[in-house]
Amino acid sequence: MTVRTVRLILVAGTTETATIDGISAAGADPELTVHTPSADAEIVEYGTTVRSPVVPVSPTGCPTPAAITRACRRLAGFETLVVDGGLAKPTGAPTVSVGARSGRDIREADPVPSAPGAFAAARQFGEALPDEEIVLSETIPGGTTTALGVLRALGEDWTVSSSLPENPLPLKTEVVRDGLAASDLAVGDCEGDPGRALRRMGDPVLATVAGLAVGALTTGTRVVLGGGTQLLAAAALVRHAGVDAPLSLATTSYVADDVPDLPGACGALDVGLTVTDPAFDGRAETPLARYVAGEAKEGAGMGGALLVADRAGELGAVADETLTVVDGLEH
Amino acid sequence: MTVRTVRLILVAGTTETATIDGISAAGADPELTVHTPSADAEIVEYGTTVRSPVVPVSPTGCPTPAAITRACRRLAGFETLVVDGGLAKPTGAPTVSVGARSGRDIREADPVPSAPGAFAAARQFGEALPDEEIVLSETIPGGTTTALGVLRALGEDWTVSSSLPENPLPLKTEVVRDGLAASDLAVGDCEGDPGRALRRMGDPVLATVAGLAVGALTTGTRVVLGGGTQLLAAAALVRHAGVDAPLSLATTSYVADDVPDLPGACGALDVGLTVTDPAFDGRAETPLARYVAGEAKEGAGMGGALLVADRAGELGAVADETLTVVDGLEH
Repeated sequence: MTVRTVRLILVAGTTETATIDGISAAGADPELTVHTPSADAEIVEYGTTVRSPVVPVSPTGCPTPAAITRACRRLAGFETLVVDGGLAKPTGAPTVSVGARSGRDIREADPVPSAPGAFAAARQFGEALPDEEIVLSETIPGGTTTALGVLRALGEDWTVSSSLPENPLPLKTEVVRDGLAASDLAVGDCEGDPGRALRRMGDPVLATVAGLAVGALTTGTRVVLGGGTQLLAAAALVRHAGVDAPLSLATTSYVADDVPDLPGACGALDVGLTVTDPAFDGRAETPLARYVAGEAKEGAGMGGALLVADRAGELGAVADETLTVVDGLEH
Repeated sequence: MTVRTVRLILVAGTTETATIDGISAAGADPELTVHTPSADAEIVEYGTTVRSPVVPVSPTGCPTPAAITRACRRLAGFETLVVDGGLAKPTGAPTVSVGARSGRDIREADPVPSAPGAFAAARQFGEALPDEEIVLSETIPGGTTTALGVLRALGEDWTVSSSLPENPLPLKTEVVRDGLAASDLAVGDCEGDPGRALRRMGDPVLATVAGLAVGALTTGTRVVLGGGTQLLAAAALVRHAGVDAPLSLATTSYVADDVPDLPGACGALDVGLTVTDPAFDGRAETPLARYVAGEAKEGAGMGGALLVADRAGELGAVADETLTVVDGLEH
């Protein structure tokens, strides 16, 4: 008998959509942001950077949510796996490839040509995984903009969150409008065709996450989508792929506060919703205060990792453990 | 403060030296043997094969030592990491690349051109690892023959073990003699030049293991070489690289029984030796009996994993846990 496990899968990748001025806070500046997924993967695996030349922090000094995922991993002891969802910079984290390549700007006509192939290979890999339950997560700067693009291409009306305290939604909406025009698509033209939505308006990470989810669900693995509105877009992709198996979204209280219609969106997609508060309040003198101020909110599996930590009875220890991880990153 | 850990690093790769008739038992037949490292990596990571089309067994049905490493991992809870040391077939295990490429037959003039680059990249990666202690290990069919080639190129006189009950040492010696001739080398011509020994007479896995060891030792990480005579060759490479930091070899009682001069070799190289008996005696009706009969002996980190399991007080549980893993592989 194979012993079955819970595994958090972090899909890490990049697009040029992230380089649009004002889109992403997932790095101190745009030149450093392209390293964030590679560094996040290292932090989840090792608790520190290994090959990455930078430690991901926002322009205001908010530490990456990968530090929280790492803290939860240490506390709850779950397995992790990094899948290359189109990395543009070297990572020292071990990765599995599904053929995903870094995406271009969705305002180009064919920005993610690797998406259909990555979806198919990720599906096959998801079918083969032996785990009882997988928690799927993402690290991709600019990912809420491409998630919005996918939702619109599918004809889904839900909105997206942001890693910035003030969500630049007008800018995202404009980028998506331009992207649809560049691909000669109207809202809803990719209904029931997730591969096309991903290739024209998405990113390689969403393609990989959606493929993994579909494959795992097909073979009876429980699937938790651990993240915010990007993972909501992944849920929409799974449903548009015709898969109606049970599915749930595990996110943070910060995303839930930012997106009031999240329960409605989950309900419409028949997706269970779990919201976990990491209890960072009262840590005003620490880097965690940036989260309480509304930065980052989610990412690199944070919501899913908090859920698993909560199940293990370790939620109360997450803040202190995260500070230990963050302290290790700075040295 | 970064929390520091013990990590077993499995370097997995292939050469065409392994396809020489009679050299290796690391697979049911030569066409399947090339899949063994990819499958071993999956077994250590997941407890089952994922992308690999075959489960590695010897021609007589002896299960791969990766099953024992997996069992020890489950019992002792150490971290693992797979480094691509020149895989020739896809693996579903997450891997780190150091630029190693599958080696050719050492009877050719320049069989492992990627060896010096892999050694250098592995050294840099080993320097960056945050672990307190790493256990380095290998899975490469035909690896004792290339290890013998490296030892002779360095001018070291020690012998090597075999995964077969009857060690085909005359054949290995002949292959090494032909290899030295093809590279226009005499015994000892690569003394003090590990990169040249690896490129002309070695394999990409040994290059990667030796580089990791040198890098990790340079930055104060404790290094255990977890394996048999291939890891002894790695120790020789470290010493010929001019590194005299403390180093130890952790192997199985099967290798120790097969290689009477192992303590002498370790002494000459100033390498500590730990021998662990997995206590498979009395399991006559199980697949473990093949080990007692002298097959496999070691590999995929078995000796190192047994050492860590022993430290954790779990050595007595290894046989039963291995049978659970093996049972899972067959279904």
